Amino acid sequence: MAADKGVSGKAIFDFRSDTVTKPTAAMMAAIAEAEVGDAGRGDDPTVNRLEAVAAKLTGKEDALFVPSGTMGNLVAVLSHVTPGAEIIVETGAHIYNSELASFAAVAGAMARPLVGDDGILDPIKVKAAIKRAGTGNIAPTGLLCLENSHNSAGGTVTPLDRMAALHAVAKEAGIPVHLDGARLFNAVAFLDCSAADVCRHADSVMFCVSKGLSAPVGSLVAGDAAFIAKARSKARMVGGSMRQAGVIAAAALVALEDPLPGLRRDHRLAQRLAEGLAAIDPNLVRLETVQTNIVNCTLDRFPACVPTFVAVLKARGILVNQKGATARFVLHRHLDETAIEACLATAEATIKSSGRSA
Amino acid sequence: MAADKGVSGKAIFDFRSDTVTKPTAAMMAAIAEAEVGDAGRGDDPTVNRLEAVAAKLTGKEDALFVPSGTMGNLVAVLSHVTPGAEIIVETGAHIYNSELASFAAVAGAMARPLVGDDGILDPIKVKAAIKRAGTGNIAPTGLLCLENSHNSAGGTVTPLDRMAALHAVAKEAGIPVHLDGARLFNAVAFLDCSAADVCRHADSVMFCVSKGLSAPVGSLVAGDAAFIAKARSKARMVGGSMRQAGVIAAAALVALEDPLPGLRRDHRLAQRLAEGLAAIDPNLVRLETVQTNIVNCTLDRFPACVPTFVAVLKARGILVNQKGATARFVLHRHLDETAIEACLATAEATIKSSGRSA
Amino acid sequence: MAADKGVSGKAIFDFRSDTVTKPTAAMMAAIAEAEVGDAGRGDDPTVNRLEAVAAKLTGKEDALFVPSGTMGNLVAVLSHVTPGAEIIVETGAHIYNSELASFAAVAGAMARPLVGDDGILDPIKVKAAIKRAGTGNIAPTGLLCLENSHNSAGGTVTPLDRMAALHAVAKEAGIPVHLDGARLFNAVAFLDCSAADVCRHADSVMFCVSKGLSAPVGSLVAGDAAFIAKARSKARMVGGSMRQAGVIAAAALVALEDPLPGLRRDHRLAQRLAEGLAAIDPNLVRLETVQTNIVNCTLDRFPACVPTFVAVLKARGILVNQKGATARFVLHRHLDETAIEACLATAEATIKSSGRSA
Amino acid sequence: MAADKGVSGKAIFDFRSDTVTKPTAAMMAAIAEAEVGDAGRGDDPTVNRLEAVAAKLTGKEDALFVPSGTMGNLVAVLSHVTPGAEIIVETGAHIYNSELASFAAVAGAMARPLVGDDGILDPIKVKAAIKRAGTGNIAPTGLLCLENSHNSAGGTVTPLDRMAALHAVAKEAGIPVHLDGARLFNAVAFLDCSAADVCRHADSVMFCVSKGLSAPVGSLVAGDAAFIAKARSKARMVGGSMRQAGVIAAAALVALEDPLPGLRRDHRLAQRLAEGLAAIDPNLVRLETVQTNIVNCTLDRFPACVPTFVAVLKARGILVNQKGATARFVLHRHLDETAIEACLATAEATIKSSGRSA
Repeated sequence: MAADKGVSGKAIFDFRSDTVTKPTAAMMAAIAEAEVGDAGRGDDPTVNRLEAVAAKLTGKEDALFVPSGTMGNLVAVLSHVTPGAEIIVETGAHIYNSELASFAAVAGAMARPLVGDDGILDPIKVKAAIKRAGTGNIAPTGLLCLENSHNSAGGTVTPLDRMAALHAVAKEAGIPVHLDGARLFNAVAFLDCSAADVCRHADSVMFCVSKGLSAPVGSLVAGDAAFIAKARSKARMVGGSMRQAGVIAAAALVALEDPLPGLRRDHRLAQRLAEGLAAIDPNLVRLETVQTNIVNCTLDRFPACVPTFVAVLKARGILVNQKGATARFVLHRHLDETAIEACLATAEATIKSSGRSA
Repeated sequence: MAADKGVSGKAIFDFRSDTVTKPTAAMMAAIAEAEVGDAGRGDDPTVNRLEAVAAKLTGKEDALFVPSGTMGNLVAVLSHVTPGAEIIVETGAHIYNSELASFAAVAGAMARPLVGDDGILDPIKVKAAIKRAGTGNIAPTGLLCLENSHNSAGGTVTPLDRMAALHAVAKEAGIPVHLDGARLFNAVAFLDCSAADVCRHADSVMFCVSKGLSAPVGSLVAGDAAFIAKARSKARMVGGSMRQAGVIAAAALVALEDPLPGLRRDHRLAQRLAEGLAAIDPNLVRLETVQTNIVNCTLDRFPACVPTFVAVLKARGILVNQKGATARFVLHRHLDETAIEACLATAEATIKSSGRSA
Repeated sequence: MAADKGVSGKAIFDFRSDTVTKPTAAMMAAIAEAEVGDAGRGDDPTVNRLEAVAAKLTGKEDALFVPSGTMGNLVAVLSHVTPGAEIIVETGAHIYNSELASFAAVAGAMARPLVGDDGILDPIKVKAAIKRAGTGNIAPTGLLCLENSHNSAGGTVTPLDRMAALHAVAKEAGIPVHLDGARLFNAVAFLDCSAADVCRHADSVMFCVSKGLSAPVGSLVAGDAAFIAKARSKARMVGGSMRQAGVIAAAALVALEDPLPGLRRDHRLAQRLAEGLAAIDPNLVRLETVQTNIVNCTLDRFPACVPTFVAVLKARGILVNQKGATARFVLHRHLDETAIEACLATAEATIKSSGRSA
Repeated sequence: MAADKGVSGKAIFDFRSDTVTKPTAAMMAAIAEAEVGDAGRGDDPTVNRLEAVAAKLTGKEDALFVPSGTMGNLVAVLSHVTPGAEIIVETGAHIYNSELASFAAVAGAMARPLVGDDGILDPIKVKAAIKRAGTGNIAPTGLLCLENSHNSAGGTVTPLDRMAALHAVAKEAGIPVHLDGARLFNAVAFLDCSAADVCRHADSVMFCVSKGLSAPVGSLVAGDAAFIAKARSKARMVGGSMRQAGVIAAAALVALEDPLPGLRRDHRLAQRLAEGLAAIDPNLVRLETVQTNIVNCTLDRFPACVPTFVAVLKARGILVNQKGATARFVLHRHLDETAIEACLATAEATIKSSGRSA
């Protein structure tokens, strides 16, 4: 849990992503004990158990273990649509912006990005965007993709009633819904419900065990049995069929045992960081968007800081990602109050010295 | 030029699109005289002549005759990018919305739609949207697509200096520019320049001879010699290699002889219609967008008319397309003052009876 | 009908392909009279009539006019299978060898080439090659493609009972059959049956009007109504939706009025040529394969001729294609007895001077 | 090393594939100690070390760790060619037959299968099959794929001089060579050379650590730096970018420390089994093809055994795969002399009771 030491001797607090989390001791112990087999033949008991657990947690008939969230989303798209379909996404969606266009390059689908409200789609806009097949030169809508919690919008959570309303709109039009739940359990922790409560509003769901849940490798795709049979074949086609994958599935099973307490702790730290930033200057963060483990710190009002903020943090052993004028802090189990304090101290010094907000 | 007679005996004025134009007598005479050969072997002299004329008109090294504008755009995308590339388009672009997602389904590209100003892209937004290759999970920008005149925005024209600025932004980033010039000569007529003046700001261009130019079938793609060699192969791959295509190329050659006078007449009629509609109610049309041969008549302020307007027009022998609250009138050589008067009379009666605008 | 004059003043007899045929006077007259409309909206009466005629001739519910045989085959594959399917083809099939891999590049299918007997597939081999879906890492068979007459095998014809047996094998496995009938009417002329007699053994068929039938441009795809609806959309996606296509459809209608007498004449000329070659040396041609309008002249036994044969013929105004040691002569309506005599005279002189066959 | 016990209490000898091998104790120890990081950011030191080792072993500039051999082959194809290319493969190649057509479905390539001699391609045939770009309607050759050792041919090995000759033919034509080395080290053990000696005759190579090498998960792709940069992006696109992959890379490093002794032992067992089968009946096995760890036992001459052989073996606790009349035995570290004896005893009883070979 203690921070790593950087080359300069300073502690390194890595806020770049929760993907940097390393397996816990309990996970490593489970790996050492894992019973394995050839998962490519359905013979790995640990993988089989993980898939059963994932299906149960999400309330779906079946599930599939794949090496990454990108693959999970890709095989879902490949299983739901054929080339030439349009998929509706939120404009900041990970599947649209950060998966190397696999939905187009591999699945031949085009995306229709709709602007959400902090990443949360509006059912009325979705309904207006849906296009039926057979209408001349218009690509028909084949899939609605949701993302909950929403990464680029700052970990915002689509509430259950909104999920239900979006699902209803899609269902009425005969369009399936896929949920990119890379951080599904962060949404679950915020909503204080079960994963199945969220997933019942989607026909398929992908969630990662390698982010806040801290397992080393892997994601799960869940859906009905026919969907998973198809997804399994598509995953094999793109190279996702692993052999003695029980060695990593064992860690995933530990990750899924009781994920919420750890995530809630991450969320509290994110609140603490957000409030600290807001105390420095209320323009730095929109507190209402800080719902899970991500804090988007916006430097729009401090243009002098934009080019230097990340470098100054880095010099003090704090790593963050920046996109445009937004520095993104992601909380996870390797970060603690000390890390938060270090961030706030650096932020305060930097912001203050750059002049008041415009 | 006289309007067709509908089944009810009423004249039919077809404002749905300039794609409904039929070949002129001069075109039919040229077809009858056409010298033909196997264009699949480069042996059709009329096709060869047409391609040479198209190259010269656009100021490019070479050109290729294809059966449709959709194919012209598709082979351009296929020749410029490989699967996984992102192409920047205006959000209302024909290639993005009305070509059955071929850029994704066939070329494996994803689209990044940017909202233009009446269809005209902003170089600053384009520059901000361009992404280089090799940056992790981000699809690199591979192509900038322009559309001039812009169909869904109401035939608006991107001025030459804007074309130049957009081209410069792309060039600086090493990104080619493709111009969807389905109605290139409408833009040329509005800008009062040559086609080459417009096309010098693009690496490749597609233009149609089958819309306002009134030829029966076909489009041309122009670019440098290497690009056209590639496009020729891609066109053959998707089935665009025709045999004795001289029979249709002959008409295209006539269409390209002196296209501007006819298009200018169409533009004057569009002005006349737009001004007439504005006189009925200024909310019906944004006059500044009526630059070429398209008039978008917006019924937003007349919600009572939305469901009935097209049907009332049709009952009087006037055909238009409607999308949402916008009825689109496209002018072309089969329409004249009589058709305009018929539209305006019907519009006035319908709008007046529906109550004042909200 | 008279041969063209080459630059050297010599007559040019073009045996390269029947794709070089030019429209007849009757076709040009029909073009001049053609009633046209916007085929992209279903408004071209001539195209509509052509599609109805094609459906009736092939005994199918509906048909679609496309600009080329390559597109016809491509949209058939796109309509029958989704990416990852395997299609069974004869190893010399045009769709496998001579359509720029569109079945893979556009439709994402892989081909399983089976070696036929002079291009004619064996139902037992086909049955053994069919693979069901859902078997691990094996791509499932999605389509059986036949070619009748078979171009590269020398215009050989698959008999009706063989067509029936192949169809039965596919049907039993739930696999559709597509017939590449680029030269369907050549097969029909040889079999002395109706086109429908051949096509009843396929779920879809493509035939060309631009080869022996002498129309300038186009091919037809026929099948049941749902298939054609899908094919129509796929054709539009790849750019095959033309506007006033009635100008070329009119010629196609003439081509389909009474195609057999002309093709039978071509077949007789092919026989005459083949017998003449066999009289020069029986190793030059396998007479039993000369069934329609193609003569494959094999120079295997005359290696000295392989590099020079085509050039010598060309010097005498005779154009042929050569692939490896095989020179291919294709008969069509621009060739006559004089052309045959010229070929035979040249062949005799060349072969004789090269020494007896090994 | 002791065989598992089946439900019936009988020992289970699993000859289905070497993919069933479980990690060794040394591997599990290395996993427990593995230093890990976010491999998606290049921060996993164990993955980085594995990739360096793989590059060195194969004599290439760089290497990439992926979750499966199928993905390794797929990203190689994606990196070497663009859609519409033809790739030359041996007709029994794994990439052609057993990877769900990913080369076509994902990479848009078509395959040209050539019949090899026990899986070994003939340079003359390859040379004759290569087609240059730009030749009309012919898909250009983009890649030559080799497989060494060759799985479906029975683990046969392409000798170094043959590799060199094939490479020379490809190089002369400007075509890259990819080596599917799923069982590269079996070939190396047979050839008694280094891995680099084999790989210098290919531009890229994929090898698996999860088969005879007994690591739980993963394969490596190696090539020059530009190729691997591209392959890394393609792997990420299809979902092959894993996070703390050091947990599995650690086992792969152990697997690569000294792989040959174990494989040589497997090869000796294969010889022993093959000779035993030949002693029962020389028609059962072609001894000259038994070069590595696979024994193809052919029942062509014992048709009565075909439907029952696998079931009889299974009843005695011996698992094998059968395809047509061929039962395939794959040797690996969980099998020993006892397993061989069990096979031979069962085979002898079954074959003898079925009557002499025809």
